[in-house]
Amino acid sequence: MKEILPLPKGFSAAGVAAGIKKTKNKKDMALIVSEVTAETAAVFTTNQVKAAPVKWDIRVVEHDGARAIVMNSGNANACTGVQGMDDAEAMAALAAGPLGIKPIDVFVCSTGTIGKPLPMELIAGGIKSLFEHLSPDGGMDAAEAMMTTDLVSKTVTAEMDLDGLPVRITGLAKGSGMIEPNMATMLAFVLTDAAVDKHTLQCALRAAVDMSFNRITVDGDRSTNDSVICLANGLAGNELITKDSKHWALFCQTLEKMLFDLSMMIVKDGEGATRVITVSVAGAASNGEAEEAARSVANSMLNKTAWAGRRPNWGRIMDAIGYSYAQVQENKVDIDYGDVPAVRNGIAAGTPEGRLVDAVSKEAFTIHIDLNLGTGKAVVYTCNCTEEYVRINVE
Amino acid sequence: MKEILPLPKGFSAAGVAAGIKKTKNKKDMALIVSEVTAETAAVFTTNQVKAAPVKWDIRVVEHDGARAIVMNSGNANACTGVQGMDDAEAMAALAAGPLGIKPIDVFVCSTGTIGKPLPMELIAGGIKSLFEHLSPDGGMDAAEAMMTTDLVSKTVTAEMDLDGLPVRITGLAKGSGMIEPNMATMLAFVLTDAAVDKHTLQCALRAAVDMSFNRITVDGDRSTNDSVICLANGLAGNELITKDSKHWALFCQTLEKMLFDLSMMIVKDGEGATRVITVSVAGAASNGEAEEAARSVANSMLNKTAWAGRRPNWGRIMDAIGYSYAQVQENKVDIDYGDVPAVRNGIAAGTPEGRLVDAVSKEAFTIHIDLNLGTGKAVVYTCNCTEEYVRINVE
Repeated sequence: MKEILPLPKGFSAAGVAAGIKKTKNKKDMALIVSEVTAETAAVFTTNQVKAAPVKWDIRVVEHDGARAIVMNSGNANACTGVQGMDDAEAMAALAAGPLGIKPIDVFVCSTGTIGKPLPMELIAGGIKSLFEHLSPDGGMDAAEAMMTTDLVSKTVTAEMDLDGLPVRITGLAKGSGMIEPNMATMLAFVLTDAAVDKHTLQCALRAAVDMSFNRITVDGDRSTNDSVICLANGLAGNELITKDSKHWALFCQTLEKMLFDLSMMIVKDGEGATRVITVSVAGAASNGEAEEAARSVANSMLNKTAWAGRRPNWGRIMDAIGYSYAQVQENKVDIDYGDVPAVRNGIAAGTPEGRLVDAVSKEAFTIHIDLNLGTGKAVVYTCNCTEEYVRINVE
Repeated sequence: MKEILPLPKGFSAAGVAAGIKKTKNKKDMALIVSEVTAETAAVFTTNQVKAAPVKWDIRVVEHDGARAIVMNSGNANACTGVQGMDDAEAMAALAAGPLGIKPIDVFVCSTGTIGKPLPMELIAGGIKSLFEHLSPDGGMDAAEAMMTTDLVSKTVTAEMDLDGLPVRITGLAKGSGMIEPNMATMLAFVLTDAAVDKHTLQCALRAAVDMSFNRITVDGDRSTNDSVICLANGLAGNELITKDSKHWALFCQTLEKMLFDLSMMIVKDGEGATRVITVSVAGAASNGEAEEAARSVANSMLNKTAWAGRRPNWGRIMDAIGYSYAQVQENKVDIDYGDVPAVRNGIAAGTPEGRLVDAVSKEAFTIHIDLNLGTGKAVVYTCNCTEEYVRINVE
């Protein structure tokens, strides 16, 4: 029996194979529709080179409300110039037509190869087929269509109780390479039947993204297409959530937890990755410096390969914090793998090698780095780097 | 017959196996001695975490003149605390004894694993053996002893004619991983019999390093041990070179060319690398921004793996400049592989795929990126990244 992803009230979805991906019958287009106009919020890539659909979506989210998201994988519609913008708008129009709405009510997302024009005939055929398959049970198909080098589809769902009213949030995401702070070939759709004020929704989404998708890194690369798009259609019938309402905190917490779970699925599915590593830095001069140090360690190929080899090579951690932008005083640094001390005052803590090897051989482990200079803290999540990562990206 | 590396007048060298490297009979210690006290200059790692020998050498170069360089591979003597400093000084003393000089007249270099104390008994035995092998023909042995993951030893030599007087410069270097701007597990010794004023020597070395070792990147990592050390003993008998003398320009040019050649040998020998790629950025808002853009491309794993696969994946170049600190306007960007246009005004130039594939399949090729915004320029040299890089660093 096929697994069903519960969508919030009034949402339906579909995922089909439109022939954009080279592999035959691989799902490569998805559609998500809300019965009624939904409040919108979104966070996009910080890359200066933005794909056409991102530019389109910036206009959609600035506009009042939206009804649908249409997406394709296999082609990023990035670096495609004026043609790309026309294609993104045409894709929105193709999805808007059957719904009797305007193109500006439709978010468009693309992910895949950069620099090739969208195959609009296939896109048109795909959208037709998506409408034929649209169903409240179509969430898993949509999630599957989002995948590129992902090995697994990524979904979460949660129900909150707001004064006896059930309110649902459901998230769908993709991403496994090109993953860095400020997102990366990463798409996430967050759907909810909660009634939320637009400004409140944007604040909640931005905060949740900062604590989730912006804390993961696979390869230090940021893509041209990253988008987190949120639709809140209000069909749960709850009292409108604003920043002053009593449910604001619960809504934010639930959203953050869900996006965090999705982001962990992404880092776990990092291209060629076999393990998740948490890099936690404390004692930095500031939170910003803590983050610089953590990212320097998490993005160092020498560290990522050492973790692949299950080697407690803490010298490479010292090296990476030393060349980061964070202020470091060598003889103050402490490093622990989980609860096993590796470095004290910048030199070996004297723990037997075997215990260190055990600590870094775990499926998932945390590296605690204390710079012992101030109160700055940050946590970043990453994965190891195996030969498989290179193989995937060479091909 | 064994190749001989001509050393400048008054220099002798040796390289021996002291048992520091795990592989038996692999040379792992080198000694270079000048008959007379030489003027010194040096450039060291910018990493905040500096190995003990680097800290020692900073004192040596601040002091007047030096006579010798003693080095070991297999152990970096980094993150070794007070013990490490004592060991570096002891190593200098062991080399100073037989020469009847002070420890402060001896540079000490170490490269290899971080965090393990130096095996001083092996070091002492090695130094004894080095003195037994010391010879004007020992340059190649010394270069061999410097190698860690290097596949080939790296040496250059050149003779200048200064008013009929032959003046020689000889360089020995090591490095293949952990290579980034501001150097990386990279050691280079530059020996000359030229008579050069100390301040002039330091300026010439700094300028040459900036145009050579600081322009290459293998994996974006900078090490704790990087050192370029120069000894100029004046035995050629030339008139002292100062910034005002007529030979200053020739000396600087020769030095720069030699260090450039050495740095190209390093990037060519990048761990697992099979090809050298030149990333040339023009039209940036400033030279600094051009360098940021060039390094962003050169250090992107997605680009380095694309080059390994001989793929003209210019979308990854657009992506990398887009997330660099350089200002970029997508629709102004032009990219060429050698003389083959790939991108015009931010979109595909329309060159047939086959020609692009041919252009990136060359043994060495240049990527020209024109941001068309200003007059800033920079060039960075890097290599592709194959599965072999990961294999080496996992092990």
